[in-house]
Amino acid sequence: MRYELYYWPGIQGRGEYVRLALEEAGTDYADVARSERGMAKMMKVMETHRGTPPFAPPFLKAGKLVIGQAANILFYLGSRHGLAPKAEAARLWVHQLQLTVTDFVAEVHDTHHPIGVSLYYEDQKAAAKKRTEEFWRERVPKYLGYFESILNGNSGGAWLTGRRLTYVDLSLFQIVDGLRYAFPKRMKAFERKIPDLVELHDRVAARPNIKAYLASDRRIPFNEDGIFRHYRELDT
Amino acid sequence: MRYELYYWPGIQGRGEYVRLALEEAGTDYADVARSERGMAKMMKVMETHRGTPPFAPPFLKAGKLVIGQAANILFYLGSRHGLAPKAEAARLWVHQLQLTVTDFVAEVHDTHHPIGVSLYYEDQKAAAKKRTEEFWRERVPKYLGYFESILNGNSGGAWLTGRRLTYVDLSLFQIVDGLRYAFPKRMKAFERKIPDLVELHDRVAARPNIKAYLASDRRIPFNEDGIFRHYRELDT
Repeated sequence: MRYELYYWPGIQGRGEYVRLALEEAGTDYADVARSERGMAKMMKVMETHRGTPPFAPPFLKAGKLVIGQAANILFYLGSRHGLAPKAEAARLWVHQLQLTVTDFVAEVHDTHHPIGVSLYYEDQKAAAKKRTEEFWRERVPKYLGYFESILNGNSGGAWLTGRRLTYVDLSLFQIVDGLRYAFPKRMKAFERKIPDLVELHDRVAARPNIKAYLASDRRIPFNEDGIFRHYRELDT
Repeated sequence: MRYELYYWPGIQGRGEYVRLALEEAGTDYADVARSERGMAKMMKVMETHRGTPPFAPPFLKAGKLVIGQAANILFYLGSRHGLAPKAEAARLWVHQLQLTVTDFVAEVHDTHHPIGVSLYYEDQKAAAKKRTEEFWRERVPKYLGYFESILNGNSGGAWLTGRRLTYVDLSLFQIVDGLRYAFPKRMKAFERKIPDLVELHDRVAARPNIKAYLASDRRIPFNEDGIFRHYRELDT
């Protein structure tokens, strides 16, 4: 079965967590909205899909199934493609970690959009500066410290939940990569506090399928329309 | 098995979505942090739980299992207590809807804390006013309109996903109830746009177990430490 991923064509955004899983697993998939007339196709599914319409991209078509919410898509893909354990308790644990990543991603987004998504960044710059300060003082240490401590406590395992890579490892790669892009100065100073996460990032980047993906044009470059945006004035 | 729910004792917060499910299902559970020395017990689990520490409350102890993230807890409880279907596709759909509720709850929180959780509301009042305007202009219509349209499209079903109540119906009750508390004027004007959601709210409130729960002191009153806070200046 060929999967169909639907996500905004110009950004990594929340679709990237799904792309990384599809790529690592070596699945056959179409990134629909990036193909010809793809945006129209995506809008059509959103407007006309009966019964279970997604609230927003990303969503995945798997045969007749249409699954929305990135973490939910990963939950579905995980145990099918060796990116999550099959036992219930372990599946829930990996999913719980992914939901914590999801929360963090929303907070990353709000560093540049603290007042609202429908307003331009330029119209909320002062608030963005304050929120970014707070984000780096309180939230980054709390979230990344949490993941770092789990890696520390995981004796012998190279990955967050043990000896086998899961989709949440791929997501943490993206978090580190994104923070490096958006806040290069702040992140450089912070990385000494999260050595195991940085190693995890590098280990993911070196996976053959991920390495090939990152070098391909299937990987959309970071840019200032996505979640991780580089604004020099927020990185001081 | 007696469940143990762990959540901040003074607020409904994100624990409430779990409480409503435990109550509707008539399960035996302890609301641990509200009992004597309960906060100390909660902190101990958070600090010492090996292997799978929760990032934050709420979390549920089910035997040896410790499950964090409200939506994840509901996913676990749902199919065990008749609050979600058992078939995979339907389970994922209900969970997807719950994750959309989760996103909305975070946005509700940010109406009064747009700059940061570690700062007082009083220190971010101007930003809160702007974010609240945006929230009611853009976000409430988008989210509640989405749920309303699913209810509309669900021919013959009294509940969001059909003829049987699921945990996401309980969560939507809480959303309507919370918005009424926090923004009575705005919500009163808005409710005419979401008649089916309002009916759903009333139908949930009339369920025998929920009715008994709401009348008991197990239901913590809304207050200005929770997610839904009433600040008159934000409700104009």
